Amino acid sequence: MSTPFTLLFALYPGVTQLDFTAPHQVFSHWQGASVRVASLEGAPVSASGLHFSQLDALEAVENCDLLCLPGGPGCTEAMLDARFMAQIRRLAAGARYITSVCTGLLILGAAGLLQGRRATCHWSMLESLSLFGALPRAERVVRDGHLITGAGVISSIDFALTVVAEVAGESVAQAIQLGLEYAPAPPFDASHPATAPAAIVHEARERQAAFRARRLAQVATAAAALKAR
Amino acid sequence: MSTPFTLLFALYPGVTQLDFTAPHQVFSHWQGASVRVASLEGAPVSASGLHFSQLDALEAVENCDLLCLPGGPGCTEAMLDARFMAQIRRLAAGARYITSVCTGLLILGAAGLLQGRRATCHWSMLESLSLFGALPRAERVVRDGHLITGAGVISSIDFALTVVAEVAGESVAQAIQLGLEYAPAPPFDASHPATAPAAIVHEARERQAAFRARRLAQVATAAAALKAR
Repeated sequence: MSTPFTLLFALYPGVTQLDFTAPHQVFSHWQGASVRVASLEGAPVSASGLHFSQLDALEAVENCDLLCLPGGPGCTEAMLDARFMAQIRRLAAGARYITSVCTGLLILGAAGLLQGRRATCHWSMLESLSLFGALPRAERVVRDGHLITGAGVISSIDFALTVVAEVAGESVAQAIQLGLEYAPAPPFDASHPATAPAAIVHEARERQAAFRARRLAQVATAAAALKAR
Repeated sequence: MSTPFTLLFALYPGVTQLDFTAPHQVFSHWQGASVRVASLEGAPVSASGLHFSQLDALEAVENCDLLCLPGGPGCTEAMLDARFMAQIRRLAAGARYITSVCTGLLILGAAGLLQGRRATCHWSMLESLSLFGALPRAERVVRDGHLITGAGVISSIDFALTVVAEVAGESVAQAIQLGLEYAPAPPFDASHPATAPAAIVHEARERQAAFRARRLAQVATAAAALKAR
């Protein structure tokens, strides 16, 4: 390709930084790709103590080949922000690939982009996808046509390599994997409710119960608004 | 612990962002820990299109419990920067744990902190560690007393979980792993020269040959300066 393949991360307050920094690192090693990071009006975004500045304004991004929505604690507020969602709908309409990491998928759902589509997100919110008419899949990376979605946070690395392989070919993705020494060796088997110690899972669910209930109510609100459109 | 366990990432121009953003994400979910990110004079740091601002000044950080040096293309220049190295030596002298990710280890080597110590770093520079008197180990995460080192870039996740387990206990690390859904599923087996397709490895070595030769010369310079101290 003579013109670069353009990838855009759309950030919002309360994003989880690793949801976009990990795939950004992968994509930054992809020759022939151009990666942009944008927020409403280009406002700086802070995420658990890291401060990201010099962002592009979403409003000023004409289009992109791939749109990626990272997840995070703030994703349901973003999903209910009309200004943010107008930009997401506009950019999604012109993108070849529509993608998300973790709970960023809820934003795509609220934008009406998931009806009848297979998709995944963080295990804690997976079942809520059906409120948006999506078909939840408990898999690491799910492809349904030009919709590519990753599960929780660190799935973003598997997601990004899948995207590179799809667009640029397997050997490009393999070279990036080699450069980043992606030979994971988790010290524990505690990555998912199905494998983590029961006490750890129980405690996580207890700790998140109120937060999750509020989120589910927000998803229901967004799903109702979508039906009324 | 009543006072928080303090972790400090020391940044420099040309750092690889995922080397510190990944462990920063892990540590940010650790209740009872306080994570700081600093550079000389608190100058903003850019890394392949991401811009990190509001950093602490290294000079103003009195001490930390854990010092972490991320790697990156600029690490050998940092290693030869007397002002940066003075801060690293000062902070290392007061830290309980001295750590690195990827080629950040070269900075610890140049600071004289690796003599006779087992350590690891990115595969491309592993053998050069012996110039600093270190004992290179081709492992994902290597512990030698209070020196904890990770291999290339994405090893930083395994590194960070190892640190959390060491200081706060396994159940804290497991809860973080569950929250971040760290169930890696690399789409390819191309993470290391030993497993990646030969053509990919050959091409990577060819592409990096000049860069690597310059780095090795810089490491030799730093090693000679260390002996002369």
